[in-house]
Amino acid sequence: METISTARAHGGCQGVYRHRSSATGTDMTFSVFVPAHDEGEVLPVLWYLSGLTCTHANVTDKGEYRAACAAGRVILVAPDTSPRGEGVADDPAWDFGQGAGFYVDATAEPWAAHFRMWSYVTDELPALVAAEFPADMARQGITGHSMGGHGALTIGLRHPDRYRSVSAFAPIVAPSQVPWGEKALGGYLGDDRAAWRRHDAVALIEDGARLAELLVDQGADDQFLAEQLRPELLAEACEAAGIDLTLRLHPGYDHSYYFVSTFMGDHVAYHAERLWRTT
Amino acid sequence: METISTARAHGGCQGVYRHRSSATGTDMTFSVFVPAHDEGEVLPVLWYLSGLTCTHANVTDKGEYRAACAAGRVILVAPDTSPRGEGVADDPAWDFGQGAGFYVDATAEPWAAHFRMWSYVTDELPALVAAEFPADMARQGITGHSMGGHGALTIGLRHPDRYRSVSAFAPIVAPSQVPWGEKALGGYLGDDRAAWRRHDAVALIEDGARLAELLVDQGADDQFLAEQLRPELLAEACEAAGIDLTLRLHPGYDHSYYFVSTFMGDHVAYHAERLWRTT
Repeated sequence: METISTARAHGGCQGVYRHRSSATGTDMTFSVFVPAHDEGEVLPVLWYLSGLTCTHANVTDKGEYRAACAAGRVILVAPDTSPRGEGVADDPAWDFGQGAGFYVDATAEPWAAHFRMWSYVTDELPALVAAEFPADMARQGITGHSMGGHGALTIGLRHPDRYRSVSAFAPIVAPSQVPWGEKALGGYLGDDRAAWRRHDAVALIEDGARLAELLVDQGADDQFLAEQLRPELLAEACEAAGIDLTLRLHPGYDHSYYFVSTFMGDHVAYHAERLWRTT
Repeated sequence: METISTARAHGGCQGVYRHRSSATGTDMTFSVFVPAHDEGEVLPVLWYLSGLTCTHANVTDKGEYRAACAAGRVILVAPDTSPRGEGVADDPAWDFGQGAGFYVDATAEPWAAHFRMWSYVTDELPALVAAEFPADMARQGITGHSMGGHGALTIGLRHPDRYRSVSAFAPIVAPSQVPWGEKALGGYLGDDRAAWRRHDAVALIEDGARLAELLVDQGADDQFLAEQLRPELLAEACEAAGIDLTLRLHPGYDHSYYFVSTFMGDHVAYHAERLWRTT
């Protein structure tokens, strides 16, 4: 692992790092904020998965999470959204290919060689974080925005024992039923829609996946709300499954980091409270 | 004035605007955050002047001021740092020319035609803000970072009745005595060092300018501290002049927005307390 930069921020250390990923077969860049902590102490870890077109840098610059992570004493890890670079397949559209990995392990060509973001985010990067940072991997939470909200929900639903807390900002809750998701899941996984269900939060819940509770914030003036995000589908699935969903619809807010940063403090506090809770 | 973008953020409105400036003879872009407020209510205004290479966008993206401005009920205005565009003189160096206006009205050629950031920031833009936003111009404060800290200090010192509160992040306190300032003041104002004194905070204090109090934060690991910033010169001048300077040196912090954003909340609260104080 190579350190690209570190800086003191809100009493902790904001770093950006690069490593050779065996999952993706590429170099991958990610950021980690580690709050102030005692020598030898380990802290809970909150994963933040980013949306379409983003890298680690968007939330690192605009997410306004550091003050809340310092107060809540939680490490925040922000991975990239896809493999990148020469020799990696790409698509001219902004919602597919590089910058749009959708947190799946692609099985269709030409994507299968590198687009293995599920394995990267759930296996390889956690092992690296555990080895290199003062992280207590027994206390992990996960959140994300838009495509990254999709990632957080599906990863959380499929690992209920690993992630103690799950939340999302304006997530794609049912990719099988919306244009962004149909394009991405069809492109990366092929036409067999049965395979898509393991990467669709609403379908996972319908198929029996369970979480005790879930926090979702959504801007009511989000330009993607009606066509791509459709939080009502998540609400219906949670209602039917008995999942305690807190879904907050915020008048006036759009899909941008102005929205994410406004509610970031609430999400970090939500995770911190659950990750530090002694049960 | 043209609206480039607006978005709901932290309960208020973060906008970016463009207008034709008569001071600079160019289009100028700036950002304004207006917190939630009652119909017809006016709010105090905090000016934030940015540093070398920056536009309005750096602090707007990375400054983490919106939560504090919402809590303190203060409008924040972030101007650009120079005129820009075709037909505007420039210099290949990053610390002179476009992006480096130094908050002076240039008198030397080829800069005098457009580089009139003093007039722009102290006269033209305040008039526009007063006309277009719910701003109480009787309650203004000013702050800034690096070159913008220089701007905030010199503008504040020369308008003690207009700005009720003045602060700075890692300011260039004595441009006449450091390489960045000697290059910029010499380039924009010519070789007559007497003319520089009105754009040098330490010289202004030596020449009799006074403020009741001043807040300055500085990273102790700032790479520009010893050669360009030299806060000890400000401390000496304030001490001799009886100005109540709070100068905080923060171990481990550098010159970046990781430093600025860490202490932004303190500065906004400092200004809000003074701007809302009933005297």
